[in-house]
Amino acid sequence: MKIYGDLGSGNCLKVKYTADHLGLPYTWVYIDIMKSETRTPEFLASFPLGRIPAVDFGDGRRLAESNAIIRYLARGSALLPEDAFTQAKIDEWLFWEQYSHEPYVATTRYHIVYLKRSLDEREPWRIARGDAALNLMDSVLAGRQWLVGEAMSIADIALLAYTRLAHEGGFDLASRVALRAWIARCEHALRLGPAQG
Amino acid sequence: MKIYGDLGSGNCLKVKYTADHLGLPYTWVYIDIMKSETRTPEFLASFPLGRIPAVDFGDGRRLAESNAIIRYLARGSALLPEDAFTQAKIDEWLFWEQYSHEPYVATTRYHIVYLKRSLDEREPWRIARGDAALNLMDSVLAGRQWLVGEAMSIADIALLAYTRLAHEGGFDLASRVALRAWIARCEHALRLGPAQG
Repeated sequence: MKIYGDLGSGNCLKVKYTADHLGLPYTWVYIDIMKSETRTPEFLASFPLGRIPAVDFGDGRRLAESNAIIRYLARGSALLPEDAFTQAKIDEWLFWEQYSHEPYVATTRYHIVYLKRSLDEREPWRIARGDAALNLMDSVLAGRQWLVGEAMSIADIALLAYTRLAHEGGFDLASRVALRAWIARCEHALRLGPAQG
Repeated sequence: MKIYGDLGSGNCLKVKYTADHLGLPYTWVYIDIMKSETRTPEFLASFPLGRIPAVDFGDGRRLAESNAIIRYLARGSALLPEDAFTQAKIDEWLFWEQYSHEPYVATTRYHIVYLKRSLDEREPWRIARGDAALNLMDSVLAGRQWLVGEAMSIADIALLAYTRLAHEGGFDLASRVALRAWIARCEHALRLGPAQG
């Protein structure tokens, strides 16, 4: 399969982490969103939603939306257990990530890393919601090792991607002990080097 | 099951539409978000994400996030066909709805209907993104009857909920012919009265 994406984007990294962990072969096609490469007629003809990550399986199957992609790649693996309610609890986190975490934690980082704004230009309302999301995760993870069940799932991968980069948006990870321990646990399971300085 | 929600919220209506269409019995528990009833210790003890809709199945299973709920309720039904890639394409729309549609189309309506702001106070950037989402749907639906495959799925239900109420946020549905036809098609399939004035 071809994965269209940018390795600086947490949404794209979710797909890389999942494919690498499952040993799925792929070709990475670099897409530069700062050059609007997701808005070209060629890209839109394949991926009408105009977003990365996007995956082309080479047989007519094409898929966008990071969490839809990792859910599809993980089917039948330990990252997405068969039990229907376990899957539903994983979905709960996947949707929460896109609605209540990414628009604050990731977008704040995007303003700094991609748009080169200074930390002083961060939006207070966005920081408050990002902090609330990180606090909720820290509180949940104080009581358990993984977000759902007793093993790493795509819920952990989906949340890990931008959480481990949150400090690049000025969010404090050091003081959130349970969250930090979970990040290290995920990084170990995925054989990633630490992202923190 | 008990559904905790507010019938003025599209996210909550998705759950009602799905349960009604599938003939699933439920008790509706009204939650008033304007009175912060999702932030009480009792509610948070059951639903740590602090959001509606939320469902309690009465046997220890509890679930939040509208699209996670309807995906779980619809399993095994025609609203969520068995084929894994068809499910992935449905997921693509579910995540797109929460990230690229709801924060613009629904939030603009929320400002007017719930916060009683005037149409003049709408945020131009939010209107632009809402219009882009509605245009994308209109364009896709010009070529087909349903968002995925040849029958109504939970992708249609998830997108219908706020799209059919978009005019309450000042968005123009009249000029989007394919979108309007799809709304009528969904309303007929779900036996809903028209929402448009």
